[in-house]
Amino acid sequence: MDSAAPDVSATVEKAVVRDAGGESALSALSAYLEQDMQACNRAIIARMESPVPLIPQLGAHLVAAGGKRLRPLLTLAASRLCGYQSTPENQRHVGLAACVEFIHTATLLHDDVVDESNLRRGLASANAVFGNKASVLVGDFLFARSFQLMTADGSLKVMAILSDASATIAEGEVLQMVTQNDLSTPVDRYLEVIHGKTAALFAAACRVGAVVADRPEAEEVALDRFGTNLGMAFQLVDDALDYAADQQVLGKTIGDDMREGKITLPVLAAYESGSPEDRAFWERVIEKGEQTEADLPHALALIEKTGAIATTIARAQAYAAEAVDALSIFPDSELRRLMTETVQYTVDRAR
Amino acid sequence: MDSAAPDVSATVEKAVVRDAGGESALSALSAYLEQDMQACNRAIIARMESPVPLIPQLGAHLVAAGGKRLRPLLTLAASRLCGYQSTPENQRHVGLAACVEFIHTATLLHDDVVDESNLRRGLASANAVFGNKASVLVGDFLFARSFQLMTADGSLKVMAILSDASATIAEGEVLQMVTQNDLSTPVDRYLEVIHGKTAALFAAACRVGAVVADRPEAEEVALDRFGTNLGMAFQLVDDALDYAADQQVLGKTIGDDMREGKITLPVLAAYESGSPEDRAFWERVIEKGEQTEADLPHALALIEKTGAIATTIARAQAYAAEAVDALSIFPDSELRRLMTETVQYTVDRAR
Repeated sequence: MDSAAPDVSATVEKAVVRDAGGESALSALSAYLEQDMQACNRAIIARMESPVPLIPQLGAHLVAAGGKRLRPLLTLAASRLCGYQSTPENQRHVGLAACVEFIHTATLLHDDVVDESNLRRGLASANAVFGNKASVLVGDFLFARSFQLMTADGSLKVMAILSDASATIAEGEVLQMVTQNDLSTPVDRYLEVIHGKTAALFAAACRVGAVVADRPEAEEVALDRFGTNLGMAFQLVDDALDYAADQQVLGKTIGDDMREGKITLPVLAAYESGSPEDRAFWERVIEKGEQTEADLPHALALIEKTGAIATTIARAQAYAAEAVDALSIFPDSELRRLMTETVQYTVDRAR
Repeated sequence: MDSAAPDVSATVEKAVVRDAGGESALSALSAYLEQDMQACNRAIIARMESPVPLIPQLGAHLVAAGGKRLRPLLTLAASRLCGYQSTPENQRHVGLAACVEFIHTATLLHDDVVDESNLRRGLASANAVFGNKASVLVGDFLFARSFQLMTADGSLKVMAILSDASATIAEGEVLQMVTQNDLSTPVDRYLEVIHGKTAALFAAACRVGAVVADRPEAEEVALDRFGTNLGMAFQLVDDALDYAADQQVLGKTIGDDMREGKITLPVLAAYESGSPEDRAFWERVIEKGEQTEADLPHALALIEKTGAIATTIARAQAYAAEAVDALSIFPDSELRRLMTETVQYTVDRAR
């Protein structure tokens, strides 16, 4: 279970399953790194422990909710792509993958507080079940735990990468709050927001993989670029899905962003190319926040009419291409192919 | 300004002013460490900077609100007591003092969210002015900044002390939330809460002072014990003041804790020794949260009648004595005397 590389026969088996069309690229990557992922899940559960019972209780709720664990998967994949050799005693990649997931979960909990969203990952959000107060405080605990995990790792370089990312995430979240309800937000400002709130952690998650493998700066930079671009593509698609997907597929309520007056590219694109009447509609629902039941279908129709989803997905595709290109400095391998397919999967979710 | 020790003549002058009764012991300690404190204030302002304008704006609000800066003062005092020699290039104590204040301020901001208190430090709370969302997110930013400051310091020992303290604070806050409205909370559980939410950071703030000075373990332990016991005394007195002080003195609304159904020693003591009628009163206001205008004066009368404030202050005095005793391994000095007087001042606030 703690061997340096995944078992080859298992890999082949998984590849067959994938070719049969039964699994997504993300599941295939996860399966390829199955032992690492299991170790990471165990680390997450172990480090959620606390003498204060509510903390592991709320933790169990989050673990049960599952989620894709995309960010820790990226840390594990990046470290293995860089040839990181783990031993039973040396599992730095696992500790850091758990650390990355804790930072992400803390952000989700705090996002639940501020966004009052009631559905996340298809389950009731932690906030709806446990209340605002618990979400803020348990988020703080997970954030503190993530710093304990970095400290335990012991690399100042890793700590700088992850603490810088944490500050950038918070700045992105504040910037998102400031641009809320403001249709005059330039697209570049929106891109800054999603870089902060999403891409910065993807980048850090990947970069620390190269650091634990003790690889040259060029590989660190390549993985940072991979993560940044994948994160941008991921968030653009997420923002598109909020006006396109049905709730079962997405696992969250469609129209959440609109209800919150969140400024995302689909809205900016539809607003920019809308008729005066359309623009008045967006100003009422997004800027004034005056919404009725009939507004979501109308918004979806306007977004369809103006091709705003296609505009958003085209942007995502461009970032995805950059992400794939960033991996080109690594030799071809099954793992690199799976990472490449994961990028494409991220964008294809929107189809 | 970056010299190793404060100017002696200035110290004498301050001592004279203090003896004249014009200043509190806390101000005297602050004055003794004036140059360090000024450097710390500059570091706080500099590290509050962000390309997202709302962050320094909210930061300026907090800096303007001032506060006692007790925790960073403890870091500076502890480092100097251990003979730490700073140079213009080496100001580790200042960076860590700022770090400690950022952790504290992040906690205050998140406390504002969950507690809905409207007055803190005699000014409108950041929450009331900027909203819940800003308090959560700017708190997260400050928390992330504190970890960047630790990383910049570069000592794994310091990082372990401060990240452990951060996790303990969060656990204490969660435990406080869980015990809310529960009059069956044992006194030991209450003491655990205030250890987590207050004493742990006081202890860490002091302990890192010994670490930067590169002093033996015994001095680290002594300063940890000093901080822990001072923190316990401080919080006990704070909890007493919530049922005793007038708002001008305390800088916050009297009766806040009661309105929130917070379990503190004054309430536990009054409840324990109350008549059946008194107990029914506490059960209604604290457990059921059913309160009217007339309840606060009645609560104050019951607390007076049962000597609950005296009980609380007596506990605080015992912790204060432990704190003073912890300093006994250090040779007598003006600084040690000022630290001792600060302990006494902390308790005397309640008189």
